[in-house]
Amino acid sequence: MTTNNLEKAAKNGLIHRRHLLGFGLGAAGTLAANSVLGADQGLQFEIPDWSKQPGPGASAYGKRSSFTEDISRQAGNPNPLYPGGGSSRSPLDKLQGTITPNSLHFERHHAGIPDINPAGHKLVINGLVRQPLAFNYEDLLAYPMISKIHFLECSGNSGTLYGNEPVNGSVQSIHGLVSCAEWTGIMLSTLLDEAGVLPRAKWISAVGADAASMGRSVPLTKALDDVMIALYQNGEPIRPEQGYPMRLFVPGWEGNISVKWLTQLKLTEGPSQFRDETSKYTDTMADRRSLQFTFPMGTKSVITSPSGLMSLNRRGLYQVTGIAWSGSGVIRRVEVSADGGQSWADAMIDSHQSTKALTRFRIPWQWQGQDATLQSRATDDQGNVQPTRQALRDARGLISRYHFHGIQSWSIANTGEVRNIYV
Amino acid sequence: MTTNNLEKAAKNGLIHRRHLLGFGLGAAGTLAANSVLGADQGLQFEIPDWSKQPGPGASAYGKRSSFTEDISRQAGNPNPLYPGGGSSRSPLDKLQGTITPNSLHFERHHAGIPDINPAGHKLVINGLVRQPLAFNYEDLLAYPMISKIHFLECSGNSGTLYGNEPVNGSVQSIHGLVSCAEWTGIMLSTLLDEAGVLPRAKWISAVGADAASMGRSVPLTKALDDVMIALYQNGEPIRPEQGYPMRLFVPGWEGNISVKWLTQLKLTEGPSQFRDETSKYTDTMADRRSLQFTFPMGTKSVITSPSGLMSLNRRGLYQVTGIAWSGSGVIRRVEVSADGGQSWADAMIDSHQSTKALTRFRIPWQWQGQDATLQSRATDDQGNVQPTRQALRDARGLISRYHFHGIQSWSIANTGEVRNIYV
Repeated sequence: MTTNNLEKAAKNGLIHRRHLLGFGLGAAGTLAANSVLGADQGLQFEIPDWSKQPGPGASAYGKRSSFTEDISRQAGNPNPLYPGGGSSRSPLDKLQGTITPNSLHFERHHAGIPDINPAGHKLVINGLVRQPLAFNYEDLLAYPMISKIHFLECSGNSGTLYGNEPVNGSVQSIHGLVSCAEWTGIMLSTLLDEAGVLPRAKWISAVGADAASMGRSVPLTKALDDVMIALYQNGEPIRPEQGYPMRLFVPGWEGNISVKWLTQLKLTEGPSQFRDETSKYTDTMADRRSLQFTFPMGTKSVITSPSGLMSLNRRGLYQVTGIAWSGSGVIRRVEVSADGGQSWADAMIDSHQSTKALTRFRIPWQWQGQDATLQSRATDDQGNVQPTRQALRDARGLISRYHFHGIQSWSIANTGEVRNIYV
Repeated sequence: MTTNNLEKAAKNGLIHRRHLLGFGLGAAGTLAANSVLGADQGLQFEIPDWSKQPGPGASAYGKRSSFTEDISRQAGNPNPLYPGGGSSRSPLDKLQGTITPNSLHFERHHAGIPDINPAGHKLVINGLVRQPLAFNYEDLLAYPMISKIHFLECSGNSGTLYGNEPVNGSVQSIHGLVSCAEWTGIMLSTLLDEAGVLPRAKWISAVGADAASMGRSVPLTKALDDVMIALYQNGEPIRPEQGYPMRLFVPGWEGNISVKWLTQLKLTEGPSQFRDETSKYTDTMADRRSLQFTFPMGTKSVITSPSGLMSLNRRGLYQVTGIAWSGSGVIRRVEVSADGGQSWADAMIDSHQSTKALTRFRIPWQWQGQDATLQSRATDDQGNVQPTRQALRDARGLISRYHFHGIQSWSIANTGEVRNIYV
């Protein structure tokens, strides 16, 4: 198939998503021309050393190839007054699919990672309950569990895009505070049933066993809906950096409410006004009022390739790919634009699709050296559409730093350089 | 809720799956009695050391808790004449959900793990094609990819259960050659389109770059259906032990046909009769005829807890849980019996459900010290029902060692000891 036959889907090179294209032998500017062999050349490569003798055998616990060790989180602590604070960002530009491997899941800590011996850890449920309870780790393992694939996103993710000047960053540095895993645990409603919630109770204060005593208030309605005590992440016990031996997991809501190293759940009449829900994690509007308890994460998408700091080194077909998610439901549509939002084409969704989970999208794009601005726009099954950056700034003002879910713009220069811009 | 109120679902203690039960305060033989606190005791625990000072901060690549390092694969090489040969088995008794973390995915090697530098690796497509092609790793990364969650199972998994005497093994040692991941890669049909398959071609010979030159023949019909060149596993580049930098992935079929370290795909008229599809991986019947190319894995399930070598240390409610899968489609039903197959109750499916993927099931069960035999039976959306062990032996004879997918029986003694038995 030559590229002339391709069905155009939107302006500036976007091609209909149904094309699972190779690179069209003989078409100009393609890769495959380098790959063409004479009919008799197929087996004439030199046999590499690794094929000549047996390698090491099976092992108890595997590790990745030394050739992939450049794939790592960007870790940093911007405030030395808070030892162990800070975060690390998932390398979205180098990952594929929707599941984030546990070693590369983003982190956000308020006082570092406690090294908890589960034999000495307790989960207490008290406050407005008929019967206060304390659970050991071993107790909890005997309870019924469910497994759900869900994203987790820090409310500060992408916050730099509220700013007046576009940072020249990568998709990892700008958007890397989102990841996705299969979480397995106990429905919180099961444990609350056992403790017996008193009618006056309307909130639950969740507190972690880290040195920050990280605390957040969760409305009882959400707690009885889909919140779980997560004990496993992608099949294995959750990692220390994710809350080992247990964390609260609050699907679709800002990450910090999924309190890690969970040790107390106290039923209360109102929210507890914890430090991190007054000094932090509120949304300050233009008139200086602050919105509090703005929990759900927005309907959002971002193109992970091509993306910031990359450089296109050839002309021809590219696969534009990225991730989309919504704190309110299932992603039903992702559109892509190559002309800064003037024309849009539907992308193909090529992964597992479920509520409050990452979704992978893809669309072919022809780049012949022209200037272009790539954008993606997600729509969920509740009808929520990802807004433009400008619409979000108009609504939230210029002080806000949380819950940025506006449309990302990657400009492609005629040199191939990819850069975060504002349109 | 006391256990008297529970709806019975089948004999010998099985309770209706809708119950997401806690342990019913005040009910006899429950855990929760140990957990009851006086109303004023909730915060009177001693503060553990790990809550008193900040821990280490975020990192580039995470690792698991030292308290979980006992969760490991059982690795072994039964034949020292084949250095690097053998396998390792996933710790199914200690995993939850459906995704297997990459470090604990089962392995099967025929000559160990080659340490491949992707810059020196090629994938050749030749034979009955219009244009032979050779792809570099970097070339392939530019192709369109899809992501699918699929199980992988060695055809020898559970093979010991064909034997006359039941081994006293664990679910790991008997059934641990099955795992599940999100695989991301290029549809093989995309690359075959580019090479141009000639009409005479009906099979593809896939060969790996390991020292065994592991080779398998794949029918072209399957290759054009759902086979992919897998480059990523659970989001990150596939691990060396899974075929880095690339493997064939043949959904639902016996694991060894998903050739690792894939370096050649040759289009042929017939199968190539590789060593591992003549001396191995055939099913020898009672009359000594051998069935060849019996690719799809059967409709199967196994209870992972309680399971062999465990011991029930209390009376009361248990969560019977396990995994189910089918090489032919989606698991639609799992039934559980506590009386060796005389009465059955529907289990709850509590995970992601998709074609050729692991599915997690669960059902509450009341154990009061009685003798019991736990079994599970899976049904897929094609109407395939997991057979009894006896039915499988009747059909396949006593020499066969591959494709065992009969019903597993775990006996519970009145001491609580769990053991693999034949019924």
